[in-house]
Formats: sequence, C-alpha cells, structure tokens
Amino acid sequence: MTVLLDGKKLATTVRSKLKERTATLRAKGIIPRLVVIMVGDNSASAVYVRNKKRAATEVGIEAVDLHLPGTTSQDELLALIDQYNQDPKVHGILVQLPLPQQIDEKVVTQAISPLKDVDGFHPMNVGQLFMGTPQAFPCTPRGIMELLAAYDIEVAGKNVVIMGRSNIVGRPMAALMVNHDATVTITHSKTQNLAAITRQADILVVAIGRGEFVTKDFVKPGAVVVDVGMNHNAEGKLVGDVKRDDMLDHASYLTPVPGGVGPMTIAMLMQQTVEFAERS
Amino acid sequence: MTVLLDGKKLATTVRSKLKERTATLRAKGIIPRLVVIMVGDNSASAVYVRNKKRAATEVGIEAVDLHLPGTTSQDELLALIDQYNQDPKVHGILVQLPLPQQIDEKVVTQAISPLKDVDGFHPMNVGQLFMGTPQAFPCTPRGIMELLAAYDIEVAGKNVVIMGRSNIVGRPMAALMVNHDATVTITHSKTQNLAAITRQADILVVAIGRGEFVTKDFVKPGAVVVDVGMNHNAEGKLVGDVKRDDMLDHASYLTPVPGGVGPMTIAMLMQQTVEFAERS
Repeated sequence: MTVLLDGKKLATTVRSKLKERTATLRAKGIIPRLVVIMVGDNSASAVYVRNKKRAATEVGIEAVDLHLPGTTSQDELLALIDQYNQDPKVHGILVQLPLPQQIDEKVVTQAISPLKDVDGFHPMNVGQLFMGTPQAFPCTPRGIMELLAAYDIEVAGKNVVIMGRSNIVGRPMAALMVNHDATVTITHSKTQNLAAITRQADILVVAIGRGEFVTKDFVKPGAVVVDVGMNHNAEGKLVGDVKRDDMLDHASYLTPVPGGVGPMTIAMLMQQTVEFAERS
Repeated sequence: MTVLLDGKKLATTVRSKLKERTATLRAKGIIPRLVVIMVGDNSASAVYVRNKKRAATEVGIEAVDLHLPGTTSQDELLALIDQYNQDPKVHGILVQLPLPQQIDEKVVTQAISPLKDVDGFHPMNVGQLFMGTPQAFPCTPRGIMELLAAYDIEVAGKNVVIMGRSNIVGRPMAALMVNHDATVTITHSKTQNLAAITRQADILVVAIGRGEFVTKDFVKPGAVVVDVGMNHNAEGKLVGDVKRDDMLDHASYLTPVPGGVGPMTIAMLMQQTVEFAERS
C-alpha cells in the first residue's frame, strides 16, 4: 500500500502552530508583517499573491499587498524595496515573479535585504544554505523536508536522486539533503541513462515541469517519491511530474498533486516570516 | 596506459598566459595587487603564504604580505580588511586560515568584499556559483575543471561522483560540475555502500583527506580519477587520497600527488586576481 504524504493536512498543523507563535509576538507588541509586491498584471501571479495573502492573514501575519503598474521602472521598485528594508515594522519582503521586462529580476532579488528575504533567493542566503549554515530557506525544498520528517522518513545515509536543477527547487533541495547527510545525485536534461540512475533512489524528488513524465520504469519498488510538478494535461486536468497510477502499490510513499508539496510551500513561507519576526 | 594529468605543466602554461595579461594591465598603469594576510605563527600557513607570494610575483602580481601578531583582535583585523576593501589599488584580499581562536573565521570571510574575494569563499560568491552565475571561483575546483578541459575530458552528460562535501572542494566542485551539465553525486562519511556508488563514476573526484583510501575497488575500469588529497603516510611520504599504484592501467586518467591538482590551485588564485584587476 502506497502511503500518500498529506501536505494539506500537515500544512494545517504548521499553520496552527504558527498562529500560537504570532499570538506570542503580538502579545509583545510585534506584529509579523509581510510585504508582497506584484508589478503589472499576470493572472497566475494574482492568484499566487491572493493565496499568500490569505495564508498570512489566517496565521496572524499582516500582509501588505502592493500592486504596482506594469510601467513601474526598476529604480522605482528598488526605492520601494529599500524603504521596506529600512522599516523595522516589516519582517518579510517578497517580490512576485515574473517581472516586466524593463526590470532585472536578479537586481531585484539582490536588493531585498537577506534578513527579510522570505523566499530565500538572495545569493547571500543561497550561499549560506550551500555552506551548511542556512539563515533562510527556499520554501519548496524546506516544505519537502518537513513533510518527510512528519512521516518519519529518514534521509541520512539514503540515496536521494533529484530530477531538475532549478534554483527554486533542485539545487537548494540538493543542498538541504546533503546538509542532512543524504547521498545526493542531481540529474537534469543532459543526464544520460536517466531511468537507470533514478531507479537507484531511495527517495526521488521530481521537479522537471513535465506532466506525468516519471513512470514506474524510473522508480525502484518501495522508493519514496516526491512530486513537485504542477502541470495541466491534454484534458486540462492538474497533474504532477509523476504518473500517479503507476506509483500506487509500487512506491512506498508518494506526494499527491494537488495536496502534497504545494500546500507545504506556502506554509513554509509563513513560517519563514514568523521566524524573521521572532529574530527581529 | 593511464595518462597522468600534469597539473604542474598546465600551471606553467596558465602562468605564462597570466604574465601577458599582467603586462597589458601594467601598460595601462594598473598593477594587479594581492594582499595576503596571515595572523599568528603557523608553519604550514607560512609555507602556503610564501608559495602564494612567489607565484604572484612570478606572474607580475604585486603581493602585499602582512604578517600580524597572534594577539591581533578581530576588530583590528576587520578594520584592516575594510581599509583594503576601500583601496582601489588592491584587487584581491586573502586571509590565510586557520585564524587564532579570538577571531571568528566566518565573520572575517564575510568581511572581505565579494569583489576582492580571490578565494571565492564569501557566501555571496558561493551563492552565485550555486545559482549558475559565478562571479568568483574557489581555486581548487576551478583548477580541476581547467585540468580536465586541457586534456579534452568532456564532463557534460557524464556521471561525476564527488567524495567529500567540504566548502572548499566537494560542494563547489558539485556546483561547477552541475553548471557544466554533468550528472553529479555527492558522497561523504554517512554514505552507505560507498564503493558501489563510486564505481559508477565516469569521473571520480576524491577530497576526503584520508591517505590512499581509494583503492581499485572504488573505481570503474577506464574512469577518470582526480585526487585532491595531500597526506603523509606512516613513512612520512606525501600521498593522495587515492592509492596510485592501484590506478595505473586501471583508470584512464589520474592526477598525480604531488604535481596534479595542487599546482593548479595556486595558478587559479593568480588567475582570479588578474581577472579582478581586469574588471576594476
């Protein structure tokens, strides 16, 4: 029997713990505050921002939601970020990507103070993570670690294979897993004999953005499969990067899509914001 | 026939190219300048500093060699670093480790401007490297990449296994290899069935600091073996982490110890200094 790793349920638990922590902070006069900046109109971004705002409010974080016109210049955005960097009442700053083409994402990412970088994307925070001394965590890999821990799935000494080398999931996931004593293999589009490598995984993390790409052939019987994908198939149905039916009674554990990694990502964003407020 | 990767010879070539670049800089009135700071007395450090200074002078870099007393306070060291950070005539700053116990290595590493961080140890530079947009390179992994390239050893699509997860070699090596399209596995002291994993390597990089630990059993016939180790065996002889005799007629390529990775490390330090001077 394959156990589904219930990220939705765990995220609820995380949120209720965060509610207690924000209550403690508020009792001390500290209101945890997250600034979410969106530039221009993008319907997907609007949904993400709305979800983040709702999650924040629910756990007792004040979300300041700034929607700037698509014509905003890079300098205007940087000036705004700087203002929030200086403001001790703001604990987290998040700029929703993508940005309009007149604005350089890299410059903006580096403009956010590492101390308020709730996404964990600032090179300073990436560096600290890879050096084994993390100060901030990218939300998706952190959510995966929490999910595995909640089901007592040990990673130390295990063979972990990661499919995908993005800066948001694959690379920081590798760093976190190495920091937790896993033996880690990073695969990507240039990997040869991919299935032969992924079949050696005790834990397989898939973040490649290709709907139902990973079939039974890629997975050792009894492996733990973490599916980070969110894709729409030909019928418009939401599917992961992993073929779910192939995994049932084959994998030992599987994160469902939806309801697996996704809810944990937003929960970790809130946790990071609360941690920053506690440190302030 | 196992081909020995001659780092000593390649380092000579690198140095002669650097000499031309420093001559061009000097013709423009720019003297590439590297500040090497040593605190306290440590005979190993003194040798390293002397070697770095000699290498610098040889390629036309002016080396400013500062030997501070072992009683130097952290604040005094930081003030000195800040002075060199501000000084436009200085292009590279290197603080020789280890430092006396009253000084926090982490604080010092982060105090050096990322733009003058010739060792590539600043978290900012580590982050950029891991994000695939390097601004500075740790010398040993970079030297290894240059050595492989000089012998036309392709890494893209190859299975690269790295033994050791230090911040100086293993981790940045993994980042560089992923950036160059290799499939990368990081192993360490907690890895189980280590030899079964290392035997899958097309290219095996060994940086574990254990003399002659890697025998034939760890290596697939025909693999490329990069030995980063520098150890003294029971007879006081300098040996690598790899049992050299086991590799001959077994590995396709091997870096000898000494004369393999070591000379490339110092050459890359000089190259980084020249690059910083050219950017200034």
